[in-house]
Amino acid sequence: MRLATLRDGTPDGRLIVVSPDGESYAEAPAQTLQAALDDWDKVAPQLGALTQFPNRLDRSRLAAPMPRAWQWLDGSAYTAHGDLMDKVFGVTKPKIDFPLMYQGASDRFYGASDDVPFPSEDLGIDFEGEFGVIVDHVPMGTDAGAAMERIRLVVQINDWSLRSLAGPEMATGFGWVWAKPHCSMAPFAVTPDELGGAWRNGRVCLDLLVDWNGERFGAANGEPMAYGFHELVARAARTRHLVAGTIIGSGTVSNADFREVGSSCIAERRGIEIVDEGAPRTEFMRFGDTVRMEAVAASGESPFGVIEQRVVQA
Amino acid sequence: MRLATLRDGTPDGRLIVVSPDGESYAEAPAQTLQAALDDWDKVAPQLGALTQFPNRLDRSRLAAPMPRAWQWLDGSAYTAHGDLMDKVFGVTKPKIDFPLMYQGASDRFYGASDDVPFPSEDLGIDFEGEFGVIVDHVPMGTDAGAAMERIRLVVQINDWSLRSLAGPEMATGFGWVWAKPHCSMAPFAVTPDELGGAWRNGRVCLDLLVDWNGERFGAANGEPMAYGFHELVARAARTRHLVAGTIIGSGTVSNADFREVGSSCIAERRGIEIVDEGAPRTEFMRFGDTVRMEAVAASGESPFGVIEQRVVQA
Repeated sequence: MRLATLRDGTPDGRLIVVSPDGESYAEAPAQTLQAALDDWDKVAPQLGALTQFPNRLDRSRLAAPMPRAWQWLDGSAYTAHGDLMDKVFGVTKPKIDFPLMYQGASDRFYGASDDVPFPSEDLGIDFEGEFGVIVDHVPMGTDAGAAMERIRLVVQINDWSLRSLAGPEMATGFGWVWAKPHCSMAPFAVTPDELGGAWRNGRVCLDLLVDWNGERFGAANGEPMAYGFHELVARAARTRHLVAGTIIGSGTVSNADFREVGSSCIAERRGIEIVDEGAPRTEFMRFGDTVRMEAVAASGESPFGVIEQRVVQA
Repeated sequence: MRLATLRDGTPDGRLIVVSPDGESYAEAPAQTLQAALDDWDKVAPQLGALTQFPNRLDRSRLAAPMPRAWQWLDGSAYTAHGDLMDKVFGVTKPKIDFPLMYQGASDRFYGASDDVPFPSEDLGIDFEGEFGVIVDHVPMGTDAGAAMERIRLVVQINDWSLRSLAGPEMATGFGWVWAKPHCSMAPFAVTPDELGGAWRNGRVCLDLLVDWNGERFGAANGEPMAYGFHELVARAARTRHLVAGTIIGSGTVSNADFREVGSSCIAERRGIEIVDEGAPRTEFMRFGDTVRMEAVAASGESPFGVIEQRVVQA
């Protein structure tokens, strides 16, 4: 099942169910994705039972499938990325036995083709390609096994980052406010079964193709997370109930052979340059630059659709 | 103007306007506080024009004035507190020229007399008495002067903290997820003018009386913030628009003469004990413990009402 949200002038838009070929849609019995998640056991079978998709889908009308959420918690589950980032920021993190996670802005997710405004090119504008899950209500203290059963939808995210501000904020220990503005989301939120064999052990085992200004930048696979999404959900829920509609992110998709497959963010490539050459060569994004992200299956299918965005002056 | 929210079985409750004597109320023309903030320029005059309060107020029916919000960003603007916390956590923070701030859980704020559940007494259960503001929409890049004009309401908050988890999370640089579960809010959200001369330079210049298990624990004054709320709002808005209804917190109210006036959280008292005696003596909260918080004016008035809560096993 693939869900999307049509812009209709309201903050949460209008939930639709997208046809298997991605060309048409039916209006969902629930008005919004949040409303569907608030009553998932009742609504999901109704969504799944739809077989007629009478309306032609104009993708330019799509908002993020979840245009805003009550909670967004982003992990950093790809070890290859985390180790490089520590080098970039000159951070020595203590050994920890729990997944890294921060709480980010959830009051707005940009649609897949929205322009993204930033105040200055000097802030180290960077994309971060990642995957995420949207959960049903998760009671406090839920373990990873039970958390897996609360994952309702899988999404693809661009977690915009401002690298010049990231280091100073991180050094405070308080996490990021400046360095992590609103994220973007690919057009379709899919149920895990929609991914078939590519959903394994709480991981999205697809290549994430990332193009910057029309050139291939990365094609890392989503599989090698140190912790699966179910473990990230359980991490988040240790001391709090998670409200239905909470979104949990993987952190930047990264593979150990990043020199071959490329990277899902610029900072990682700069990290590789620092390691290999002593200094970074690649600059961050400029106004007018574009980034495109698409997760593809071996069959060539693109379950989440395409993020393709332009960075603009705020 | 004092606003509050009656529980009505919905997540956002029913907005009411409270009479000057706090004993009665009128239903607001907007259904919820979020709805009022979404259309403040139109709704606020209607709220302010109410002079008849036909219903008797039963405070036990009150939720938090803002039972959930799209965004909660908490500062740490009291230098006396921050310096002691660094000692408690053994953290050496770099010199920074911007206010400390983290993003916390906003999908639920406990009402002022709700029991507060935690999974274990071993987590270092602590209260943190603070003030907060609720803003209208704030455009990205708004400066402190303009931010002052976007502050719509002032609130009083108990920012529950789990100290045993705070240090390890802080050391990651990602901020807190485990250590900062949902907060509580005093019953009344008030417009700044309601505070009269106690609202000065973006600060709530009132004593915050904190009682733990019926004994006075602190009576720090809200004035000595290193940054006023308008500066905290501008800090938050540097790289993001703030959605109407965003709540910005002061951090734990703390005064330089904490040995005389006491503290607004247990960790601060433990910090004083560490400095004065080499080790902390005061333990954290146990299940069944209560905390009471009330900000009082020189006249004896209590603009936000009283937080009085019990800690329970989740």
